[in-house]
Amino acid sequence: MSVYEINQARLFKTLEELAQVGRTRDGSSCRLAFTESDFQGRALVTDWMEQAKLTVRRDPLGNTVATRAGREPDLPAVMTGSHIDTVRTGGPLDGSLGVLAGLEIIRTLNEQGVETRRSIEVGFFSNEEGSRFAPDMMGSLVYVGDFDLQTARTMTDADGTCVGDAIDALGFAGSAPLPGPVPHAFLELHIEQGPVLDNEKMEIGVVTSVQGIRWQKLLLSGVSNHAGTTPMSQRHDAGYAAARIATLVRDLTLEIGPPMVGTVGHMRLGPSLVNVVPNHVEMTVDLRHVEDDLLTQVEEHFNHEAAAICNREGVALEIQRMATFAPFHFESDLVECVRAAATARGLRHMDLVSGAGHDAQIHGRRAPAAMIFVPSVDGISHNPAEHTEPSHIAAGANLLLDVMLDLAE
Amino acid sequence: MSVYEINQARLFKTLEELAQVGRTRDGSSCRLAFTESDFQGRALVTDWMEQAKLTVRRDPLGNTVATRAGREPDLPAVMTGSHIDTVRTGGPLDGSLGVLAGLEIIRTLNEQGVETRRSIEVGFFSNEEGSRFAPDMMGSLVYVGDFDLQTARTMTDADGTCVGDAIDALGFAGSAPLPGPVPHAFLELHIEQGPVLDNEKMEIGVVTSVQGIRWQKLLLSGVSNHAGTTPMSQRHDAGYAAARIATLVRDLTLEIGPPMVGTVGHMRLGPSLVNVVPNHVEMTVDLRHVEDDLLTQVEEHFNHEAAAICNREGVALEIQRMATFAPFHFESDLVECVRAAATARGLRHMDLVSGAGHDAQIHGRRAPAAMIFVPSVDGISHNPAEHTEPSHIAAGANLLLDVMLDLAE
Repeated sequence: MSVYEINQARLFKTLEELAQVGRTRDGSSCRLAFTESDFQGRALVTDWMEQAKLTVRRDPLGNTVATRAGREPDLPAVMTGSHIDTVRTGGPLDGSLGVLAGLEIIRTLNEQGVETRRSIEVGFFSNEEGSRFAPDMMGSLVYVGDFDLQTARTMTDADGTCVGDAIDALGFAGSAPLPGPVPHAFLELHIEQGPVLDNEKMEIGVVTSVQGIRWQKLLLSGVSNHAGTTPMSQRHDAGYAAARIATLVRDLTLEIGPPMVGTVGHMRLGPSLVNVVPNHVEMTVDLRHVEDDLLTQVEEHFNHEAAAICNREGVALEIQRMATFAPFHFESDLVECVRAAATARGLRHMDLVSGAGHDAQIHGRRAPAAMIFVPSVDGISHNPAEHTEPSHIAAGANLLLDVMLDLAE
Repeated sequence: MSVYEINQARLFKTLEELAQVGRTRDGSSCRLAFTESDFQGRALVTDWMEQAKLTVRRDPLGNTVATRAGREPDLPAVMTGSHIDTVRTGGPLDGSLGVLAGLEIIRTLNEQGVETRRSIEVGFFSNEEGSRFAPDMMGSLVYVGDFDLQTARTMTDADGTCVGDAIDALGFAGSAPLPGPVPHAFLELHIEQGPVLDNEKMEIGVVTSVQGIRWQKLLLSGVSNHAGTTPMSQRHDAGYAAARIATLVRDLTLEIGPPMVGTVGHMRLGPSLVNVVPNHVEMTVDLRHVEDDLLTQVEEHFNHEAAAICNREGVALEIQRMATFAPFHFESDLVECVRAAATARGLRHMDLVSGAGHDAQIHGRRAPAAMIFVPSVDGISHNPAEHTEPSHIAAGANLLLDVMLDLAE
């Protein structure tokens, strides 16, 4: 495809400079949304965008999009982007890679004097992580018009500070119209944040879908009894029922097979003493699959079996819905375009389902969207040890360049 | 056997008066060891002992024994007793019943002008519960000479107060010699604190043994991973391994059958978030059986299987010993004596293994000992709702009277 190559050294230097913003003692980058360090990160990237002679616009939620005008600037642009906010213990690549690879592509096109028919845009969208303010992917949701700006401004963090006040205090707000213009296509380069590509020795993951997610909270109530004087036949052990339910989650998940995943991440016993039969358990169940109907069936089956376990133990069960996220399927033509470009570059690639949510799935509601994954060493993310081999980062950025140039003509 | 009957109304009134000492808003009796309310309870019971014309002796740990002299006062006495300290949420019967039934027996013998060959003694032993100061059964251990007085005085509570200071501040200490004299036999009447007699519609439990106890702490270390992006095959889920181990405890316990009991009372996950695979679990395992060798085998088998579970999941396992209590078997001739006396009184009785520790097992190290259980309604204890039917309390006290009279001749 393209004959152009991004400048690896420049990209890595840019990534490292941004990673230093909000760096903590343990090496994490901490740029929680709408904090001072998030603001500093934005200022730095915005500076780079302006130095690259791009037209930068910022909307009232702080979403920032830089445009490199095409020969036909009235046509919808080819857009790429991601986010620069982080979790509390963020690594150097999550989000940043997608934004700075977009910037690097534009720097490369500028250097090479390449003109495109359509404009090319690179953006960063506010509060993707949702670590400080719910919901996650807030900026993209507001950008596409699926979440109201005024409602977003009222969301509060654990300290009671609301988004609106945090934005106003630091001057995040711009005046670009909302919702933002619909692009011709939306591409996002991101680290996998899982171990599959690394284990499979792949360079590129062609993301076909994002998993649907079902979160439930289970509350089990049994009878607290003396661990010595209460025969097994006369127990109503909420802890045992919870343990059986946790193994059920694993069994059902394995029975369905990949890409199904199921996790009991949180479990809290009461009174949690060595010699007292537990009378209370709070636990969470996280079920994910790319097919919504199957997910519904699995969850219903799980709820039925969990109730049967509790019933046998004489333990009361209450199930509460925490959250539901529908699966998202990327546009198949655009996915095929990414796949073909990877083949053309001779990159080892495979199709992949994303287990985590990303900005691209929100932009994909209005425009064709696709994602490119690069491997995460050992699958580690949200951690200062987050790492991707430099050659894989370069491969991902070059592939993004190829696809964007193709779409921009 | 005996033609004598204790005075039920007087016994219940005495139990109720003691229960009022340290009574809290929720109806509990709170007389934690070596506190002001424990002291008040002791003063009340000591008064009653002196009113019954008994000779009262108190040792430096506050163990208090009252003697009703026999015709041959130099012979070892027939002793009964228990404790009057409580857990924080104590009921009216745990411990108190054994002490006050002994007192009631002596009041009855006094009233009826009954003489015995051997002296009869009733005692209460300090800090049986161990809720404030470890170890539990401290008073009995010191009384029989198996725990050093000076060491006992150095044991501290959660606030850093030591036993010695608490005793000295309130004047608990007496000057009776330690260890105390070896009795001819030791009997203890106690509530079951479990549901077996109540479920079986029995009036009396003839206690043959006290369960041995093994406590272990398990520390599991896996890998914290994203619940969406980590395929099932690539997880090292400490929470799942812990859940499998908890179900293993139940399975092994049921396989052995009664009187085996096994409990996972405590389990704490880290980081315990809905969408993160747990990387750390701390859990406890409490295994009890009356046969020490079998208990050793079960625990070894459990440890082996737990290691296999962790190995399959790629989770590291560290097992720490928390405590070991050997089983105790009451003297079979004396147990048979209790059994025969129950039959002679026409009481519905059954043999029983105690799942909890009691003073009698400590005194039984030096002298023949036996225990009589009366039913606990719904097995509830360590709770203000602790209750035994009045007719069962009377049956237990009368049975104790019969056995003691028999032994005292």
